[in-house]
Amino acid sequence: MKPYLLEHEELKELSAKIGGWRIMTNHIEREFNFSNFVEAFSFMTKIALICEKHNHHPNWENVYSKVIIKLSTHDLGGITNLDQTIASEINDIFEK
Amino acid sequence: MKPYLLEHEELKELSAKIGGWRIMTNHIEREFNFSNFVEAFSFMTKIALICEKHNHHPNWENVYSKVIIKLSTHDLGGITNLDQTIASEINDIFEK
Repeated sequence: MKPYLLEHEELKELSAKIGGWRIMTNHIEREFNFSNFVEAFSFMTKIALICEKHNHHPNWENVYSKVIIKLSTHDLGGITNLDQTIASEINDIFEK
Repeated sequence: MKPYLLEHEELKELSAKIGGWRIMTNHIEREFNFSNFVEAFSFMTKIALICEKHNHHPNWENVYSKVIIKLSTHDLGGITNLDQTIASEINDIFEK
């Protein structure tokens, strides 16, 4: 997938497409909460595999049962279709 | 291991004991750099197992090949022997 920066209109519709994610100026972010560390880190492991597959990696942090994920496409300086795709896959994993 | 807050003298000697860690007011932290995301996340996976074993979890973040780990003992409001033990085990993993 060749990434391209999302246009203004696409960004406006983005939060409806990737529920729970906040659309910031140059990145998107979402906080995920679990019951404990094992659940949180298992979630991170699944995401790590997806991100490596896409060769596109998050800026993320974890404290016990909480995971905060930020996605952006550094090379293009903003939010791309690739960020949207990965955010959507992350939501699918979370909702399973 | 029952954690106890490190005394002033112990804190002064701490940086010599856990090389690379910065001793802050209420926590210790270290940045680790790898060649790529797979190496960085593999390192995180090993640490996750250690932390779960001790039931003591870091505040940590990852961006691609970089991992920043912060350790403190929230319940006691500072740096304890448990933080020192885990920092030392993390260093062992990193140096392997």
